[in-house]
Amino acid sequence: MIMTTVLNKFKAESAGKLMTNEYVSFEEHQTVDEIIDFFRAYGKGKQNIHYIYVVDQKDCLKGVLSLRELLSTPGATQISDIMIKNIVTVDIDLDQEKVAHIIKEKDYVSLPVVDHHQKLLGVIHVDDILDVVQEEATEDFHKMAPVGKLDTSIKNVGILTIFKKRVSWLVILVFMNIFSGAGIALYEDTIAANIALVFFLPLLVDSGGNAGSQSATLIIRAMAVGDIRLRDWLSLFKKEFSISFLLGIAMAVSVSLIGIYRGGIDIAIVVSLTMLTIVVVGSLIGMSLPFIFSKLKLDPATASGPLITSICDISGVFIYFAIASWYLGL
Amino acid sequence: MIMTTVLNKFKAESAGKLMTNEYVSFEEHQTVDEIIDFFRAYGKGKQNIHYIYVVDQKDCLKGVLSLRELLSTPGATQISDIMIKNIVTVDIDLDQEKVAHIIKEKDYVSLPVVDHHQKLLGVIHVDDILDVVQEEATEDFHKMAPVGKLDTSIKNVGILTIFKKRVSWLVILVFMNIFSGAGIALYEDTIAANIALVFFLPLLVDSGGNAGSQSATLIIRAMAVGDIRLRDWLSLFKKEFSISFLLGIAMAVSVSLIGIYRGGIDIAIVVSLTMLTIVVVGSLIGMSLPFIFSKLKLDPATASGPLITSICDISGVFIYFAIASWYLGL
Repeated sequence: MIMTTVLNKFKAESAGKLMTNEYVSFEEHQTVDEIIDFFRAYGKGKQNIHYIYVVDQKDCLKGVLSLRELLSTPGATQISDIMIKNIVTVDIDLDQEKVAHIIKEKDYVSLPVVDHHQKLLGVIHVDDILDVVQEEATEDFHKMAPVGKLDTSIKNVGILTIFKKRVSWLVILVFMNIFSGAGIALYEDTIAANIALVFFLPLLVDSGGNAGSQSATLIIRAMAVGDIRLRDWLSLFKKEFSISFLLGIAMAVSVSLIGIYRGGIDIAIVVSLTMLTIVVVGSLIGMSLPFIFSKLKLDPATASGPLITSICDISGVFIYFAIASWYLGL
Repeated sequence: MIMTTVLNKFKAESAGKLMTNEYVSFEEHQTVDEIIDFFRAYGKGKQNIHYIYVVDQKDCLKGVLSLRELLSTPGATQISDIMIKNIVTVDIDLDQEKVAHIIKEKDYVSLPVVDHHQKLLGVIHVDDILDVVQEEATEDFHKMAPVGKLDTSIKNVGILTIFKKRVSWLVILVFMNIFSGAGIALYEDTIAANIALVFFLPLLVDSGGNAGSQSATLIIRAMAVGDIRLRDWLSLFKKEFSISFLLGIAMAVSVSLIGIYRGGIDIAIVVSLTMLTIVVVGSLIGMSLPFIFSKLKLDPATASGPLITSICDISGVFIYFAIASWYLGL
């Protein structure tokens, strides 16, 4: 009970919340035999003890030693002679996602948690990190849906809870889509004069959303696993431009075939030009939005899926009818 | 070199591929002191040894013992007296995602890998499982994009590689969207007679796709973490019906306001009815498609994002104009 109270004072999703008090620490002058004696007296049945921590009299962390190393050393040796002094520690306030990056990179089974005086406060075990990695991925998936955060299994959660998690984004997106409608209203005459243009509307508009959602997903995941950072935006933007231009050409060729068949050469030219523009614009929006969200200290994972699709749809409507009314001289 | 050759013969993404040969095993009759002697002679500098495995003369696994337990036991004790006999093992062919579920559930630092005679072949460490959990989540994110599998960082991968991973899905979706176009062509007269209907097209069609993509994402992630199985489909389908009906009502009310403002009471009724139907149909498609894919032995993660959006778009176009031409008597 006391432990729970103590642990509750730490920040949500911080190292302090994740750590346990179940570790063993010794002082530098102690010998291997003394530690084996300690284990024979008190070690039975304890869980998850793979390292011993070496501290000074103020409980400041001085070194770490695996039980394997302890076992491999003659009994009279002082532990300060065999401990690893170059210790990887995590600060008590560090975000759990960053703790996961460290434990993943270093391949440790546990990490000591310290305050800013290097005082040992607890230990984080890799099995808790495994839960963190899975939870963080689930959170990102749900943000992409987008739905609000669900803390329990979707099998057990109530209908009204899921309703509440889903409805706000859906209604927001409905109102955002008024802008697509406005774009259509603006070009009502163009559409009325050439109703065949409507045929290509979902196809063109969706393609922009699809391309945008692809690039957003790639960026969001790469950010989450620590593969790219804010400063990479410009180089990735240039790269995305080249990629999306090639994608746009490929898709313009595909759609031009449908265009010729369905509406003749003029329509084919309009839809091809539109496709190229929409795919490039959609991809660049998709890759940039996670960076913008991250810069604004919002979670980049929110910038995906339906949100990107809606933004790309709105741009797509304007691009399409602007090109159509310009080319067809309507 | 030999180890690499041996390990390469195992199935991709199987326990055999993940395991290492770096473990220590002893026979049942050996004592704690004998093992400590072994470590003092050969244990220096080895990595990731947290358990010892106890085997018979044919190398069949009989028990497991943590180094902590070994250290906590008097030196003359036989290890067969203190080993855990009820061992969790994984089969050499087991899929790595299932290995991750086991290691996550049991909170072990490593798991022994055996053949069907219980012969010990290797050990899987939790730090490799951490990589697996992250990779599998990344794979699912990319499938949702959808893009093909990328093995390296998006920072380093070439433009043409990304182009190839993205283009096929985008072109497939373009051709799928011909069906939306066909729906529009079918109702061309309805549209020409009431051009205001086009105003609501992106808004309605997107809402179905958004609702469908929400429910698909929830189901796909719950399947990936082992939270739901194929047999849960019917109960989740009923639940989704109730949820999506409530969502549909909320969104129909929102869109009816826009409908009255933009097109009058008849248009408002048409768009509200359409919204309700589209959201229910979209949600049910979204939640069912991952189950269908899973039943067909395809990865359910492929059934998401743009694919769901496109299917919902096509259904949406037909639902919308069918309701419009019925209600408006066109």
